[in-house]
Amino acid sequence: MLTGGGDCPGLNAVIRAVVKSAVGRGWEVFGFEDGFFGVVEPIPPIPLGFDEVRGILDRGGTILGTSNKANPFRYPRRNGDSWVEEDRSDEVIERLRRLGFDALICIGGDGTLQIAHGLAKKGLPVVGCPKTIDNDLSDTDVTFGFDTARSTATEAVGRLHTTAESHDRVMLLEVMGRTAGHLALHAAIAGGANAVLIPEIPYEVEPLVRMVRERAKAGQSFSIIVVAEGAAPKGGAPSVAESETATPGRGVVRLGGAGRVAADLLAERITEHEIRVTVLGHLARGGTPTAYDRLLGSRFGCRAVELVEDGVFDHMVALKGSEIEAVPLSHASKTRLVDADGELVRFGRQLGLTFGDEAEGR
Amino acid sequence: MLTGGGDCPGLNAVIRAVVKSAVGRGWEVFGFEDGFFGVVEPIPPIPLGFDEVRGILDRGGTILGTSNKANPFRYPRRNGDSWVEEDRSDEVIERLRRLGFDALICIGGDGTLQIAHGLAKKGLPVVGCPKTIDNDLSDTDVTFGFDTARSTATEAVGRLHTTAESHDRVMLLEVMGRTAGHLALHAAIAGGANAVLIPEIPYEVEPLVRMVRERAKAGQSFSIIVVAEGAAPKGGAPSVAESETATPGRGVVRLGGAGRVAADLLAERITEHEIRVTVLGHLARGGTPTAYDRLLGSRFGCRAVELVEDGVFDHMVALKGSEIEAVPLSHASKTRLVDADGELVRFGRQLGLTFGDEAEGR
Amino acid sequence: MLTGGGDCPGLNAVIRAVVKSAVGRGWEVFGFEDGFFGVVEPIPPIPLGFDEVRGILDRGGTILGTSNKANPFRYPRRNGDSWVEEDRSDEVIERLRRLGFDALICIGGDGTLQIAHGLAKKGLPVVGCPKTIDNDLSDTDVTFGFDTARSTATEAVGRLHTTAESHDRVMLLEVMGRTAGHLALHAAIAGGANAVLIPEIPYEVEPLVRMVRERAKAGQSFSIIVVAEGAAPKGGAPSVAESETATPGRGVVRLGGAGRVAADLLAERITEHEIRVTVLGHLARGGTPTAYDRLLGSRFGCRAVELVEDGVFDHMVALKGSEIEAVPLSHASKTRLVDADGELVRFGRQLGLTFGDEAEGR
Amino acid sequence: MLTGGGDCPGLNAVIRAVVKSAVGRGWEVFGFEDGFFGVVEPIPPIPLGFDEVRGILDRGGTILGTSNKANPFRYPRRNGDSWVEEDRSDEVIERLRRLGFDALICIGGDGTLQIAHGLAKKGLPVVGCPKTIDNDLSDTDVTFGFDTARSTATEAVGRLHTTAESHDRVMLLEVMGRTAGHLALHAAIAGGANAVLIPEIPYEVEPLVRMVRERAKAGQSFSIIVVAEGAAPKGGAPSVAESETATPGRGVVRLGGAGRVAADLLAERITEHEIRVTVLGHLARGGTPTAYDRLLGSRFGCRAVELVEDGVFDHMVALKGSEIEAVPLSHASKTRLVDADGELVRFGRQLGLTFGDEAEGR
Repeated sequence: MLTGGGDCPGLNAVIRAVVKSAVGRGWEVFGFEDGFFGVVEPIPPIPLGFDEVRGILDRGGTILGTSNKANPFRYPRRNGDSWVEEDRSDEVIERLRRLGFDALICIGGDGTLQIAHGLAKKGLPVVGCPKTIDNDLSDTDVTFGFDTARSTATEAVGRLHTTAESHDRVMLLEVMGRTAGHLALHAAIAGGANAVLIPEIPYEVEPLVRMVRERAKAGQSFSIIVVAEGAAPKGGAPSVAESETATPGRGVVRLGGAGRVAADLLAERITEHEIRVTVLGHLARGGTPTAYDRLLGSRFGCRAVELVEDGVFDHMVALKGSEIEAVPLSHASKTRLVDADGELVRFGRQLGLTFGDEAEGR
Repeated sequence: MLTGGGDCPGLNAVIRAVVKSAVGRGWEVFGFEDGFFGVVEPIPPIPLGFDEVRGILDRGGTILGTSNKANPFRYPRRNGDSWVEEDRSDEVIERLRRLGFDALICIGGDGTLQIAHGLAKKGLPVVGCPKTIDNDLSDTDVTFGFDTARSTATEAVGRLHTTAESHDRVMLLEVMGRTAGHLALHAAIAGGANAVLIPEIPYEVEPLVRMVRERAKAGQSFSIIVVAEGAAPKGGAPSVAESETATPGRGVVRLGGAGRVAADLLAERITEHEIRVTVLGHLARGGTPTAYDRLLGSRFGCRAVELVEDGVFDHMVALKGSEIEAVPLSHASKTRLVDADGELVRFGRQLGLTFGDEAEGR
Repeated sequence: MLTGGGDCPGLNAVIRAVVKSAVGRGWEVFGFEDGFFGVVEPIPPIPLGFDEVRGILDRGGTILGTSNKANPFRYPRRNGDSWVEEDRSDEVIERLRRLGFDALICIGGDGTLQIAHGLAKKGLPVVGCPKTIDNDLSDTDVTFGFDTARSTATEAVGRLHTTAESHDRVMLLEVMGRTAGHLALHAAIAGGANAVLIPEIPYEVEPLVRMVRERAKAGQSFSIIVVAEGAAPKGGAPSVAESETATPGRGVVRLGGAGRVAADLLAERITEHEIRVTVLGHLARGGTPTAYDRLLGSRFGCRAVELVEDGVFDHMVALKGSEIEAVPLSHASKTRLVDADGELVRFGRQLGLTFGDEAEGR
Repeated sequence: MLTGGGDCPGLNAVIRAVVKSAVGRGWEVFGFEDGFFGVVEPIPPIPLGFDEVRGILDRGGTILGTSNKANPFRYPRRNGDSWVEEDRSDEVIERLRRLGFDALICIGGDGTLQIAHGLAKKGLPVVGCPKTIDNDLSDTDVTFGFDTARSTATEAVGRLHTTAESHDRVMLLEVMGRTAGHLALHAAIAGGANAVLIPEIPYEVEPLVRMVRERAKAGQSFSIIVVAEGAAPKGGAPSVAESETATPGRGVVRLGGAGRVAADLLAERITEHEIRVTVLGHLARGGTPTAYDRLLGSRFGCRAVELVEDGVFDHMVALKGSEIEAVPLSHASKTRLVDADGELVRFGRQLGLTFGDEAEGR
């Protein structure tokens, strides 16, 4: 078992479920550290038993560590002053065989699942478990982690509410979501925000200005706008967080991009309210997973072990309605965006949410 | 619009969504107080606009009030010293017509939806919105309120954990669920409990004793057991909370039943641990709804208004997979129990959860 | 170091602080298991270093375990069919000397601190750290654990609020507090309850009935009453939780007492509202400690180590205003009750809180 | 009554307590909107009774609105293209007399209390109620709002923990505190951070780098640093949030300053870890007040009314140990900084917290 990609509340629930249900069958379970990094590098995997998974169900993060970057098919190697990539997938398969493992459970997002599929095609018995805090994987109704992030972001909208109202401010909350705006949209509806900017719907500043002023006229002299980090004004590019490349080495400092861009655009037009930006950032990734995510993670973990038992490889577990099903890994890489004409956007508009696209004549 | 049955986190989200999306269409919206009580009695309905629903999204309960008992088809009337029931449904329909309403949205559980269906059969344009904190309605994947209750119950398991562990105790947590054990089962898995007793699986005390002792032998000298209020020992009847009928008038005092019965049975066998019962009771109904429930309630409310707009009456809104659909009200009364051979019970067992039915030889 | 008495959020913060600051000084630290039980019985103490206290700051309970009953001065010994008590304090002192310990830090309540004082009088270098979830120790302004319990109880009042209001109910919440009503009083004020019953103020039912009816007349047809478990009606004895002695062996099942007594008294008089009792019980002891309690526990732990360093024995740490001071252990046993004529009761009355003592003519 | 300065959790608890205890005495209470703005401008004050304060105890912000800028002694007036300030204090006093008010209760921070003192010196019967989320007022042990902010910031540290650990990152959390570092210090201790940078202790980057590396060597390859917004490197000025003045009109967009400066300094030296900054910002001001803050706010409000009743003007209420006392308003303006040689900093060091001043040879 390994966990790859960004950390996510519920990962430990999956790990615990895999260990409990596999060890309960009399199997041995090992965990690789830091995603595929720990598989490629000769790091001995950690034996996992009941003691190792005790008390982790309500802990965020992953006890196995994770890595965003280690891809065995394009593994970085230093070549003089620069880096080259090489395919070390055969090595990985060889190593796992030599260690005597019967299967590898890969818990991770898009990237991790594609690697898993690649290894499966080469004959490795792999089961995937999807993870994405952005909820943008198309082959599962939802993944663990999203509910916790949504809950945190919704609570943040509520926190801004009291300050915004007391001070007659326009407050922007930037949340994760580079290509998909699910988190922003859900938090905006559940938190009762007044506008939401998402990557799927390029926005103009005019409808936002109009919304702020109409609210003020109706006695609500404050507004709250949720901004996905990938949201961009019509005709503009998504704003790269500015200092992303400004610092040397691996050390990279990021502060909000899209929220600030929107705020600057608003500040050019609105002078009767103070405008403030808050970047939720990593706060949405952390913390205790919600009951929903602990349950979903636990179900994914149990089902993954059943797939191993039944020899159903090159598949991942997925939530379909109320059931956990097996879906071919080859499907996993499709991204699910917010449907700009779908139910949730339509409901959002009915609830009074502005998307910034309500141009004259719409 | 009216809300009937027990209160439930998310009701206000539905009310707000109905008002926002209906008023946004230029409609007028009125709310009846205290469920069907306010319809039968000549209480003037309250006009609901944006101001009335401001700030209620994150509030538990229902601003309209609710009633468990007012059924227009069997409405109580005092007859000398006793009460008789009479059918006042025609009066209700007549009153609503006279008031000029085009539709009635009924938000409630099993009972409320059956009444709604009865009224619809008599020609009233009714749309239903299902609500059950026990999650035991068969025609919607889930309803709002359940996630909040699950979250509260899961947190309670966690709170007991630290005390149980520090004191080497067996602690029982009684949660709602008279006929269906969904809440107990979900909270037991998400909270990492050691046993769960549900109405669908009659229990014996022996497997519980064995579990407690095996854990103690393995160094875990404490155990946590979640008990649904409708759980009963094999061959026993569900325990009526004892003082349910002991006090005069309408005033009824309830304290835990099923949890205490299980604790007494355990105390006859286990003397090496202290045993404690906690009854979660009404704490699970109250409090701020989770983001999940606010979102689901909002979606239900928006969709209910769309059904009114489309003239789809005698139906209720329901969650099916990722979509909100319309389901005939005639279906609504079926109860969904925990499937004793289903996925979640199977996963529970794999995670080490004892159900009290693991007799010798199973 | 050892922890005695009931478990309490913040104990692990103390343990962590003692270990971090002592190990940082180059000392060795050991923990006895299960309070004085682990000292009297020949259980080897556990060496505690940075690794042992990692990640425990936000965990409730105590990693050392605790015991309510093990008193070296009156240690139980089986004598045929019955138990006798014997003084094993000399043994304890001898054992600690033989193990080469320079000091013993005792974290616990009233009972534990008295034992600590007894051992100190016999020459053992002891430092105490007060702990009481009831906040009834007279020589410290407050102890850790109380803020967490207050926070949990206050939240519970809020949860009942929505249900009470939706259903026009009178809801009683029973919280800990056998001799002192601090927790009930604080939670009632912070939660906005309508009445509070505490051991220090014997109550009559008449003022409660009047309060419920006056509220109903003013359009608030629900009421919330917080009841300390030691509250008793005027002239009545505190209600022993009924089944306290009903079950054999050590296994004891407790359900609410005082809340039920009050509810029964109310139900004799009030028939126009449903009445419900909720017993918060152990839920108030558990869970993640608040930031306040983590901070206070950490300060207590650091200061306790400073007292050891400075050779200030037979003292305990205590919060006085904004400072942590050293107080002689001989003082520790005094109980601080709620002052029935004090500031908080006076403020409570000003805020509209009924105490049940507002008889005619008061 | 009025509320001035930044909003703060607990303000509504004060307002509710003032109304409840004053109306209970048979007095009439009125609230001015938006701080002194509503007093200078001819805005009619709002009559406040039980209905107006119902349900606000657990709401953040202030139902009266607030203003940072309206000072009657230096009230802005447009003069052609620019602004001049004029003294309108006599007008204010005259207006209040004409309205027939017997006293003015001013709830606010440093600035508001100085204005209150100025008005009192001119003969207005004023009572103050101190409010500062930074906890930097010297004449009260603590004020409401701080505990909520500390709780939010502590939770944020915990959320970053899981991400930091899973990804081997150095994570910085910037919290409020321009001149005083109380919030950063408390959150760092209660959250178990590894370093804290506060305005009172200018920092160097070298000790931070050393801490990060020593932790990595000891197997903890992540670190969490809490940064007060007024923290500055040795010899450097506090970083003004960069775009503070960059946008036109009143619209001002702020993003973190001090956190980013520290991160940039670290990124120059540390390339083996990713570095991330999160700015907690307004999230710490908002949300439901903790039980502690609701209680303290309620006590302040009750006591303020008692001061009015007793004719004790030109004083403010203040917490001293366990009691609420009256303190002359002339004292109120002193700022309490973190004592760099005080108990809490000393304890922080003992707990392993780095302050960035541990230069060679210290």
